[in-house]
Amino acid sequence: MDDDALKSATATLLSLGPQRVWSLLVTVFGDLAQEKGAAIDGPVLSALMSDLQIKPEATRVALHRLRNDNWIMSSKHGRTSRHSLTAHGRKQSNAASPRIYGLPQDAPQSWKMVILKGSTTPDRDQMATLGFIPLMPRVFVGCDAAIAPDGALVLSPDTVPQWIATQLEPRDLADEYAALFAALTTLEQSLPRDHSLAPHDIAVLRCVIVHSWRRLVLKHPQLPPQLYSEKWRGHDCRALVTTLLARLPRPDLGRITPI
Amino acid sequence: MDDDALKSATATLLSLGPQRVWSLLVTVFGDLAQEKGAAIDGPVLSALMSDLQIKPEATRVALHRLRNDNWIMSSKHGRTSRHSLTAHGRKQSNAASPRIYGLPQDAPQSWKMVILKGSTTPDRDQMATLGFIPLMPRVFVGCDAAIAPDGALVLSPDTVPQWIATQLEPRDLADEYAALFAALTTLEQSLPRDHSLAPHDIAVLRCVIVHSWRRLVLKHPQLPPQLYSEKWRGHDCRALVTTLLARLPRPDLGRITPI
Repeated sequence: MDDDALKSATATLLSLGPQRVWSLLVTVFGDLAQEKGAAIDGPVLSALMSDLQIKPEATRVALHRLRNDNWIMSSKHGRTSRHSLTAHGRKQSNAASPRIYGLPQDAPQSWKMVILKGSTTPDRDQMATLGFIPLMPRVFVGCDAAIAPDGALVLSPDTVPQWIATQLEPRDLADEYAALFAALTTLEQSLPRDHSLAPHDIAVLRCVIVHSWRRLVLKHPQLPPQLYSEKWRGHDCRALVTTLLARLPRPDLGRITPI
Repeated sequence: MDDDALKSATATLLSLGPQRVWSLLVTVFGDLAQEKGAAIDGPVLSALMSDLQIKPEATRVALHRLRNDNWIMSSKHGRTSRHSLTAHGRKQSNAASPRIYGLPQDAPQSWKMVILKGSTTPDRDQMATLGFIPLMPRVFVGCDAAIAPDGALVLSPDTVPQWIATQLEPRDLADEYAALFAALTTLEQSLPRDHSLAPHDIAVLRCVIVHSWRRLVLKHPQLPPQLYSEKWRGHDCRALVTTLLARLPRPDLGRITPI
């Protein structure tokens, strides 16, 4: 990547959240090598991670950790290491992909509310796993497909007042989506219009985009756009990520220049 | 009323709640003289109140209070006082009648839930006036016809778990309905089957029944039966009150023996 504006936009995106190297590797493998049989050669991975501003030693430590977690496996082919997702890592990546790569038009359109019998079980984390966001104690909101826990009172909305958005949107997440939207917009404006990007640059850009998006979108269940305020940039981010990834089609790993 | 069992059942009903004489007069006029132009002569009223176990002096004080409240008006016809509802008193009685005399089959069948923006306004009393019962802070339940306050989130139930009954039923009211149901059942079993009751006795019995029922049913908005537990006797009381009042048709005031 030679263009300063593009480099700067990439750096901004990477600076939005804490960079855990193992998490960045999860993004790289999830985006570029999720298919069964796909693998990334060590020198290609080194080249990508280098442009993602990760030092070789940090990549080695993170790879070691992910092998211990049964997420990544590595094998030797001659003098070259070859890394790929394990069955477990692939399953986890598959499970997260609809939430990361889902198209804006596939967002849930209807929702429901559940009221729990008491305030202690299921707890907020369990409710989030089921796809529900807390509105107030005992009261949760989920998209129509979310499965309500046993014994909950389930309700469908007749009218939806404006205030529900302000009570549902976590403030910190709203700020993070706003920052991400600004950074993605800058990146989009910096992209060359002439298809001049090398496969390596495209791979790096995809990983930066997916990583900064995945970090936020996997934090909370998805609800229909009408539940959010005008200021919420979560859905705009999904639209922009979709546009950007379409402009940066996943490159052939074999065409990425190794270090 | 000569029959001891009937007198005892009447006494039990009257003992269920505090007897405010003015409130009993509201029942008497609401049940026996609600129609426009209807009036109760002083001696007839004295005879009824005497069997309702109210002393003449207490009736006089209560009549005075109700005249001051513009609920009752009195006029002299020769040496006889004649009492009737004012336009205001009639309007209030008219307004309460559907809730008191409504047939079981006319009970609301569907309901909705509203969630308020905050926990302070409207308050519980205002929500009760609109026809809503609190389930928990900010969350209220009303029949389908109840009008939700501006800005509320309005929801329709998909599933209704058992626990909602125990959280909606006020414990003290549940106990009071149970006691009323027992007393009404005893009264019903004590009623002669041979239509031998005098118009005066019928009038007293009606007032006792309506008064003890009105005292409870006007305390809370009506919700569909399916929202209550098996133990809730509110709807059974309405069914029994309907049966009893049908067996004791409103007597001609002119046929009641004055004191």
